[in-house]
Parts: sequence; C-alpha cells; structure tokens
Amino acid sequence: MPYIPLKENLPGITGLLDYRLDTALPIRELTQILLRGESTLTEGERELIAAVVSNANECAFCTAAHTAIADLYIGDPEISAKAKEDPQTAPLSEKMKALLQIARAVQKNGKFVTEQMVKLARDDGATDRELHDTVLIAALFSLYNRYVDGLASVTPTDPAFYKRLGQILLNKGYLPSKDRYASL
Amino acid sequence: MPYIPLKENLPGITGLLDYRLDTALPIRELTQILLRGESTLTEGERELIAAVVSNANECAFCTAAHTAIADLYIGDPEISAKAKEDPQTAPLSEKMKALLQIARAVQKNGKFVTEQMVKLARDDGATDRELHDTVLIAALFSLYNRYVDGLASVTPTDPAFYKRLGQILLNKGYLPSKDRYASL
Repeated sequence: MPYIPLKENLPGITGLLDYRLDTALPIRELTQILLRGESTLTEGERELIAAVVSNANECAFCTAAHTAIADLYIGDPEISAKAKEDPQTAPLSEKMKALLQIARAVQKNGKFVTEQMVKLARDDGATDRELHDTVLIAALFSLYNRYVDGLASVTPTDPAFYKRLGQILLNKGYLPSKDRYASL
Repeated sequence: MPYIPLKENLPGITGLLDYRLDTALPIRELTQILLRGESTLTEGERELIAAVVSNANECAFCTAAHTAIADLYIGDPEISAKAKEDPQTAPLSEKMKALLQIARAVQKNGKFVTEQMVKLARDDGATDRELHDTVLIAALFSLYNRYVDGLASVTPTDPAFYKRLGQILLNKGYLPSKDRYASL
C-alpha cells in the first residue's frame, strides 16, 4: 500500500506522476528528450540502460516496464534478460557493454566511474554525447527507482500489465497525453 | 579533469547544465518547483534535504553548494553542519528529523523507507505532500550527485566559490537566467 494516497488504477510511477502534475511535467520532458530525442544511441539501447539500472536498484516496477519497452524496440527479449544479468557477457556491441558498465557504476555512485571505464568506452567508439547521456540516463533512473519505491507505489505482478504499459510508451512516448492510460 | 569537455569557468553542475541545454531545462524547472515553489516546507528546510542527501552521497560539489544556500536561508550554519552529521541529534523540529530520516533512506534505496518512518513523520505533523516532496527531493539529488560525479566535473576547493554560488541561487533561483554565472 502506497505511503500517500494514489489512484488505485495507476500503479507504479503512473500514480506518482498523476499525484503532482507540476513536478511530473519536467520529469516527463527530461525522459522524452533523453530516451526518445535525437541520439546516436537507438531507443532500444537507451531503454536497455534504463532497464539495467532499474534492475540493479531492484526496482521491480521500473525494471519490468523498461524491459518491456526495450524488448519491443530490440525484438529479442533474450538481449535485455542477458544485459540485466551481466552486460559483459550479453550479446551486445562492445560499445554498449562499456556504456552499461558505466551506467552500473553510476547506479552505485557517480564516483565509481573510472577513467579506465571511460577510455574503454571511447576505444569502442563512444562519443562525448553518448558518455554524457549514459550517465544522465543512469542518474535519471536512480531518481525514478527511488521515487517509485520510496513511496511504496504498487507493483503489479501480472506480466501482461507491463506489456500493455510498454505498448503505451512505444506509441505515446513519455510526454503527457490524453487518455494516456486508458488501455492499461 | 571532466570525462567530457566542459567549460573551465563553469565547475560542478554548472558546466554540465551548460553542456546540454535541452536536458538542462527540465532539470532546472523540476528543481525550481520542488525547492522554490509553494510548499509548507521552508526553502531552508528543502535545501537542507538537498545538502543532507548530497553529503550522504559524498558529492562534495552539491553538498557545499546546497549547504551554502541552506545557510543563507536558515541564518545559522551550525544547523546544516549538525543535520549533515546526524539529523536525529541536530537542532531541528521533530518533523524535520523524521523527514530527513526518510530522505537518508531514499538516498540509499527507496526500499529502505519503512512504514514506521512514515508513521513517525506523520505523528510529528508531516502531510502527504511533505512526504511526497521529501522523497522526490532526495531522489532528485540522487540524480544530481550521480551526474556531477559520474562525469568527474570539477569541484572547486575555495569555500568562497560556494558562497558566491549560494548567493546566485538565492537571488536567481534555478531557472535559466541571463549572465547567470557572471559573478561566479
């Protein structure tokens, strides 16, 4: 049961973003820019960073939601499953392995990112902007995971719920939209 | 030395917010709403949450910056010093002690917030909105701290720098403004 009154039909982050719309708007905008805006990282790669960080923070709601949308973009659920288990042995590009190593470090604490990790990512082709965005996506999901779990929002257990949510995020993105959760 | 090229005259978060202006804008807006918008928590109390969380994350830049601005609002630097050391023995209201305990839990992981912590805060007069905002401020600074340290932005060591930055945050708030850092 959530620590503050949230709408029962809006579990996880959805009820929190509905609870205070003024703070929700910039959170949604930041997410839209980072995960859907122009980037040399694909939408699937960026959602994978979100899923891997959320999994490391043991945030069940965010992990399931961003795994669902990563899988829709990538097309093969084995990739997100293996990336969450261990990015280094997952079937990913060397660049993505290096970026996910950085994201995992950020998840613990920004200080855990080392020059060596950054050099490895650069050697594998990562740009300044990709390094920046990886750190900021990992930091943003460190916010989301704490928001969702810190107020004990409800985590649905039915996998079909996250498939429906992933489809909404695929079709509508992260900005506010009319009847956004009608199909949830 | 930062892991990506940032302007030398803009240390810590200031250079990062200048590096990518489109992502900076919603981060600034969220901060302005949460720390300066209408609230039953004072600006000083909200900046204290930011300083305590940043200190627990060992983010030297954010800790010094938000201590400086908290001190300007509160007027007695001993309060922030003692709150960072141990909120429970600091000269704070019982409500603030309880909210800072929740913020410290969120800093570690949202799951560390317990029903008992929330009950204690409520018994000391905390409202739903204060609980919500405390968790979201703690989550937001979990983002900031990771952003600042994850890209190894520069941390000035001169205390006078943070006094100047605190004064800018007092006078201008968090939204973008012309010649914002001219006096930095």
